[in-house]
Amino acid sequence: MNKIKLGILGYGNLGKRVEIGVKQNPDIELIGIFTRRDPNTIKTVTGVPAYTLADLDSFKEKIDVLALCVGSAIDLPEVGPKYLKYFNTVDTYDNHDEIPAYLEKLEKIGNEYNKLAIVATGWDPGLFTKQKVLVESIIKTGIVDTFYGPGKSLGHSNAINAIDGVVDAVQITNSNKELIEAIKAGEATEYSAFDKHKRECYVVAKEGADQNLIKAEIINMKGYFVGYETIVKFVTLDELKKNHDTDSHQGLVLGVGEMADGTRTVIELKVAFESNASSTASIMLSNVRAAYRLAQEGKTGAVSVLDVPVGYLHHKSQAKQRKYI
Amino acid sequence: MNKIKLGILGYGNLGKRVEIGVKQNPDIELIGIFTRRDPNTIKTVTGVPAYTLADLDSFKEKIDVLALCVGSAIDLPEVGPKYLKYFNTVDTYDNHDEIPAYLEKLEKIGNEYNKLAIVATGWDPGLFTKQKVLVESIIKTGIVDTFYGPGKSLGHSNAINAIDGVVDAVQITNSNKELIEAIKAGEATEYSAFDKHKRECYVVAKEGADQNLIKAEIINMKGYFVGYETIVKFVTLDELKKNHDTDSHQGLVLGVGEMADGTRTVIELKVAFESNASSTASIMLSNVRAAYRLAQEGKTGAVSVLDVPVGYLHHKSQAKQRKYI
Repeated sequence: MNKIKLGILGYGNLGKRVEIGVKQNPDIELIGIFTRRDPNTIKTVTGVPAYTLADLDSFKEKIDVLALCVGSAIDLPEVGPKYLKYFNTVDTYDNHDEIPAYLEKLEKIGNEYNKLAIVATGWDPGLFTKQKVLVESIIKTGIVDTFYGPGKSLGHSNAINAIDGVVDAVQITNSNKELIEAIKAGEATEYSAFDKHKRECYVVAKEGADQNLIKAEIINMKGYFVGYETIVKFVTLDELKKNHDTDSHQGLVLGVGEMADGTRTVIELKVAFESNASSTASIMLSNVRAAYRLAQEGKTGAVSVLDVPVGYLHHKSQAKQRKYI
Repeated sequence: MNKIKLGILGYGNLGKRVEIGVKQNPDIELIGIFTRRDPNTIKTVTGVPAYTLADLDSFKEKIDVLALCVGSAIDLPEVGPKYLKYFNTVDTYDNHDEIPAYLEKLEKIGNEYNKLAIVATGWDPGLFTKQKVLVESIIKTGIVDTFYGPGKSLGHSNAINAIDGVVDAVQITNSNKELIEAIKAGEATEYSAFDKHKRECYVVAKEGADQNLIKAEIINMKGYFVGYETIVKFVTLDELKKNHDTDSHQGLVLGVGEMADGTRTVIELKVAFESNASSTASIMLSNVRAAYRLAQEGKTGAVSVLDVPVGYLHHKSQAKQRKYI
């Protein structure tokens, strides 16, 4: 069998997890890591060679799919269109509002250069997007909503870190379990976005800093904490690193509603990831396979996970998959 | 907008629920019910006209998709191939072992007659099949398994009904919650198929029948109860109808395993249907839409739910779906 030849662009946390994840996907062969940094300074986890981005030029015929493991905020809007000219790509773009425009831009490039991009292949957007659309296809009247946590929110942690007098901070987002149970029981049909989550802040303050002032600044931060049930706890740096600075995350897509005859249907997808990055990498790798298969069939342009049949993600052949329908 | 013109073949419990379900799908228009019975004896729930099967001949150009709402055991193997010659079809074929051969047969007919079949579109096989394949694409090492209940098992209820001295019976299947929790906690990695479920039997015995004998016959029935934790309770016919004869059902697809770096991932899909038939009908209707869209794109032959992108099931356009990725 021909293995799928994979390149990884970007060697941060996600890139490393994709590198490690390849060993659970025997139909995928990792060709190399491509990074902005000096490859001589990089020791890869698996010993796979590291190259510069300029080296990618000579890999156009040697790589089937390029996994773009760079950030969404600044890098992907530039890297995505640039490398789709030469490679089929997958990414974990997560700027929800910009996804339609990003897809449209990539669609043109992919069609022109005969390549395919699958965008936003992580868990949200990605896995959860698919589930929301699936549940909405079945439950037409009722609630389809997403809940997150317990898990670290990077954006909110950074916002606390920016406060004067803060050494380090971790913000753990918790879903509101009472609300979730009430929705499932049909007792809560209306609620505010603020009710869905509770925010726990673990903060390391500078010696001598006014903790009450820091706490007030956090609780009153608009767009981040105002409106939410927020708890602020001051801890030592050791405690923060040991007990609160986690890569684990959890989430729920909840669908509750009525069928046309008035009977109730509840559909829940719950995920618990010990490592957000590792699970995201595994999801991304299944989409590497899908990108390869779709490209083999002649598909070009750009697609979202909503356009990818689930069978394309699975390592077994269609014939073998059908044996356990 | 052109509505999808739907015909329903078969007017049992599922056919009726599909008929009722159409009202939650404004992009679908129900053209008629087609049945073996004398249509003059049928009063449809929504007032849509009923026709004979022979009448289908004159509807070849008037129906986009035909929902085959007949049984899997005897009817579908004959009805599926027969009507695919003239109509795009969806069905809820559930004879797991026969699905690959059934697909192969329909694939040839569909390609020859330029029609498309989506087979096995219920919840299991169907929704749960998709979920198993999705989870196996992410969790490569560990357990991916399905659990059912509480809900009525038709086959097991019928088996009890066949015992001498039994007036009526309902068998409720329950998933083994302790085992599920142990799997999630990583404490149970090996277990037997018998451990997964517990069987509760509610039996109405004939006056004067030997209840101990009936109980022994149930518990010792091979292929049905031997090996399972089985509870037998004798009730009155009134109690049976009122408290135990339910169309509700629940199920779980559980995935628990390790990523390549040893971190754990748990993915659960839980469904709870107050009416098994109504929820199945709603899932089937989303596949009616998918069959129509795929056929519009020129797809012919036969596909399983593993080949259908989730976006094709949803009532909104691709452009609108992308806005909430």
